[in-house]
Amino acid sequence: MKAVQIKEFGGPEVLKTVEVDEPFPNENEVKVKVHAVGLNPNESYTITGTYAYNIPELPYIPGYDATGIIEEIGSNVEGFQIGDRIFLSAFSADRNTGTYAEKVVVDAENVFRLPDNVSLIKGAALGIPAFTAYKALFQKAKIKAGEIVLIHGASGAVGNWLVQMATAIGAIVIGTSSTKKGRNLILDLGADHAIDHVTQQNKDKLLSLTNEQGPDIIIEMLANKNLKTDMQIIQRHGRIIIVGSRETIEVDPRNLMTNEAIVTGMTFTSPNEKEMKELTFGLHAFLESGAIHPFIGNKFTLDEPIKAYKNLMESSGNGRTIFVVSEE
Amino acid sequence: MKAVQIKEFGGPEVLKTVEVDEPFPNENEVKVKVHAVGLNPNESYTITGTYAYNIPELPYIPGYDATGIIEEIGSNVEGFQIGDRIFLSAFSADRNTGTYAEKVVVDAENVFRLPDNVSLIKGAALGIPAFTAYKALFQKAKIKAGEIVLIHGASGAVGNWLVQMATAIGAIVIGTSSTKKGRNLILDLGADHAIDHVTQQNKDKLLSLTNEQGPDIIIEMLANKNLKTDMQIIQRHGRIIIVGSRETIEVDPRNLMTNEAIVTGMTFTSPNEKEMKELTFGLHAFLESGAIHPFIGNKFTLDEPIKAYKNLMESSGNGRTIFVVSEE
Repeated sequence: MKAVQIKEFGGPEVLKTVEVDEPFPNENEVKVKVHAVGLNPNESYTITGTYAYNIPELPYIPGYDATGIIEEIGSNVEGFQIGDRIFLSAFSADRNTGTYAEKVVVDAENVFRLPDNVSLIKGAALGIPAFTAYKALFQKAKIKAGEIVLIHGASGAVGNWLVQMATAIGAIVIGTSSTKKGRNLILDLGADHAIDHVTQQNKDKLLSLTNEQGPDIIIEMLANKNLKTDMQIIQRHGRIIIVGSRETIEVDPRNLMTNEAIVTGMTFTSPNEKEMKELTFGLHAFLESGAIHPFIGNKFTLDEPIKAYKNLMESSGNGRTIFVVSEE
Repeated sequence: MKAVQIKEFGGPEVLKTVEVDEPFPNENEVKVKVHAVGLNPNESYTITGTYAYNIPELPYIPGYDATGIIEEIGSNVEGFQIGDRIFLSAFSADRNTGTYAEKVVVDAENVFRLPDNVSLIKGAALGIPAFTAYKALFQKAKIKAGEIVLIHGASGAVGNWLVQMATAIGAIVIGTSSTKKGRNLILDLGADHAIDHVTQQNKDKLLSLTNEQGPDIIIEMLANKNLKTDMQIIQRHGRIIIVGSRETIEVDPRNLMTNEAIVTGMTFTSPNEKEMKELTFGLHAFLESGAIHPFIGNKFTLDEPIKAYKNLMESSGNGRTIFVVSEE
């Protein structure tokens, strides 16, 4: 089968399209014919061999998320049938042979039914970004209808789910994007307001959109840039959820004291069984009701791994970069 | 009556002991003969005229906390009688004539019955420090029996209440103090462990006391010094409560992401009615049961305001600095 593989750690140039043997499922695993693959920024850390969560053995096929059709089922696996349309998100799987490939074998507990109204291609927007958005809004921020939520990087792969989910439950949504195209997308997705990134200079504009009270909730994709400003504008008793950060930042803890705000961090790693049940039931319900829709960005084939990777890392953040593996 | 007054803003040297007229209570106020006064660090900001919460008109008599006997009652005030033993904490009062005085007039809603087993002198440890400790542990951290709590500055005016309350409900308490005297006091107050301040160098010691898991809760008195280390050692899903901070600090938001910990800030300003009810009922119950005891530090008279202030600001943090106004 065709797969994108690395034989050494490094930049996008180590990604090679090669022919490899198909993997076989063990008793707790399923084998999936891949239709589409959603790329994640954290996979770039795996490729460079610098990722705290996963330094893989080489050669290695990257990729955590995909959609596809179940082709083979391990003897201990229940609840699936050959031919089922599924999406998988294997970040916390014991075994994942890598989704940048025509076939993948993965723990059955990381495989989820794809709702009937979601195509195998569009379903590539699911996986880590969708679970991350759901966890941030519902399990961490505990968002409620009528609350004002500020979503940084709202046109990105996680951001567009955040905008749609928050809008769907009746929150007032302000999304940020640095480009006009991104801001138009945010409004199309249902946000009440779309603004440029909030800086020390333009934070008055944000406050004027919130009756000078500040947002109840801020979902922060790049805390090393924005956390100082977030702590200044968050509403009294508000919640700041950190989903992404790359380096350190200087902050004034007194901001948190005077407004009694909360800052919490999260990653999409090892949710427990109860959290995972809520995530999958909640996401399915949103998708099946039509309250939210998968939104994908630029498409590539498995023969274009370097182009795809550059797009992911340089993207202005409009939807999710995907590999289309099989159109059927 | 005798009072400590300022006629200009500045350092401790502006505090003068003078004779002034006694204040009269309005319909919602009570007049109290003062027995003891607990000093608060935030009063030093009021005296310098740089306090964000309160820049008073001059001349001004400082002081928010005191114990005493009710001497006169406004016509609308219910629930008190002349001769009642009370403590008062007037930080959020509409009117407070200043507790650094032989008599004080204050809104009745900032006056609380002193439990029978607490002397008028020892009661001076109550007020802002006791309410702050209760709010931090129960309303913010939501501490539970069996949890490990790290209390920075545990021998200070707030810290000694934190140690006693956390011990009383069955938490495992680790207190920090920079002096041997302070660490002995922390152990006397019931803490399980007393250690030097946690620095980048000695944080391994703290981790070894917590089975390498880190504390469930950290109560932080000086976030500008410790927040970076707090975020590194806090247990997964732990809570850091910021009660004090003086300037900015550089932190790594990724620490909060990987351990999904929460940082929240607080001050003891304007609790709502429900919070205040919990604070007063909780504090009374602890005191009346004997589970916690007021602990005071150095005593001064109203004729020694400058000495008292220097003691407050330079104190190694062993108990609360007080004025004894009347021994009866």
